[in-house]
Amino acid sequence: MNLILLFNDDFIDENKVRLDDRRLRHVLEVQRPVKGDELRVGLAGGLLGSGCITSLNDTSLEMEVSLLDTPPSPLPLTLILALPRPKVLRRTLLSVTAMGVKRIVLLNSFRVEKSFWQSPVLKPENIQRQLILGLEQARDTILPEVLLKPYFKPFAEDELPSIVKDTLALIAHPTAQEQCPRDVRQPVILAIGPEGGFIPYEVEKLISCSFHAVHLGERILNIEAAVPSLISRLF
Amino acid sequence: MNLILLFNDDFIDENKVRLDDRRLRHVLEVQRPVKGDELRVGLAGGLLGSGCITSLNDTSLEMEVSLLDTPPSPLPLTLILALPRPKVLRRTLLSVTAMGVKRIVLLNSFRVEKSFWQSPVLKPENIQRQLILGLEQARDTILPEVLLKPYFKPFAEDELPSIVKDTLALIAHPTAQEQCPRDVRQPVILAIGPEGGFIPYEVEKLISCSFHAVHLGERILNIEAAVPSLISRLF
Repeated sequence: MNLILLFNDDFIDENKVRLDDRRLRHVLEVQRPVKGDELRVGLAGGLLGSGCITSLNDTSLEMEVSLLDTPPSPLPLTLILALPRPKVLRRTLLSVTAMGVKRIVLLNSFRVEKSFWQSPVLKPENIQRQLILGLEQARDTILPEVLLKPYFKPFAEDELPSIVKDTLALIAHPTAQEQCPRDVRQPVILAIGPEGGFIPYEVEKLISCSFHAVHLGERILNIEAAVPSLISRLF
Repeated sequence: MNLILLFNDDFIDENKVRLDDRRLRHVLEVQRPVKGDELRVGLAGGLLGSGCITSLNDTSLEMEVSLLDTPPSPLPLTLILALPRPKVLRRTLLSVTAMGVKRIVLLNSFRVEKSFWQSPVLKPENIQRQLILGLEQARDTILPEVLLKPYFKPFAEDELPSIVKDTLALIAHPTAQEQCPRDVRQPVILAIGPEGGFIPYEVEKLISCSFHAVHLGERILNIEAAVPSLISRLF
């Protein structure tokens, strides 16, 4: 936790917050500050700043906060991810939030196991938790939007065309002819398939929506390595 | 598993292998082939090719293999990683092996928890297992070398100078002035600190060995995102 993310509910006065949850326990166990110390804070959806500890004990922490700095720039990226297995999804949500992705679409694909859609990881509160951990990791305050799209075809036909407009639309596909471009400096929509890849029907659907397929070399990477590799190469 | 990695012990005749372990179970559960099907194989330390199934039942799989193709090029990278927590280490070994890293140094640092060095993940057979999973993921055959360096100072003073020779030596450090370079096309040695970063003494030691510090932007990434991001940006 490189930043304590604050919410409006934490405020007990105009510039004063009180914490008594996971964030208090983290501060007590890891940071171990004393009264008068400054902690790095940020307001969800707002500015970054610092909090001066005015009272601290085992059950609560109070700070006088001052919020002055803008959060880091978001990446101009919409990430479409064939729903990964729950453990991988949890870590991926955290990592891509930390990297600055602000729109994440979790999409069905023929090779996505149906049971993944029943996972508790997809409950809104559990998704939110991973996003918060990602923001705390990266010192950011702007929560990404996560959209669940359990039907490939209606999403590709009815929703994708308007999302794709004015962006560079790429499918990461190990057998593509073209290398993934570097440092593109423009909005990107990037689709990443499941283990085993999108099936030809899905690739064709995406290509008919102006996507083109790119690869990262002859190695086939796991999702955990592929996602940060692609994002880091593009921006 | 995008490739079945074979070892000399698997050969029962010049071009014939028999499998009865984890690889057999994976083939039976996931790939579900029949006699006559071709599976993608590679010989550890050697060539890639295919195996034609000559016999298959619940307890063994026999293939006639033909090995003709060279494995993908290695990355010209030595990765020095402050020992991460065991779970993260396991995943990172797999990911960086899949990305083509062939030399990994696990180094102590002031902010590495001492208990991490006692983890069973560091046992040679457990390290080897993650490397094999990484090769199977990426369709590669060349096992990386993993070196354990539980003492920072003697490593930095006695061993680093000869490793660094004729390479671009970089420390990934969030507060660095310089951005991590892209597409460097030369051998690199990259040092990545623990959660909380290398301490100033350690950074100075590395700088005195010709390292220079680079950053990936104002966001602080977790190891799982930082390692692939840095590698993908460099190569």
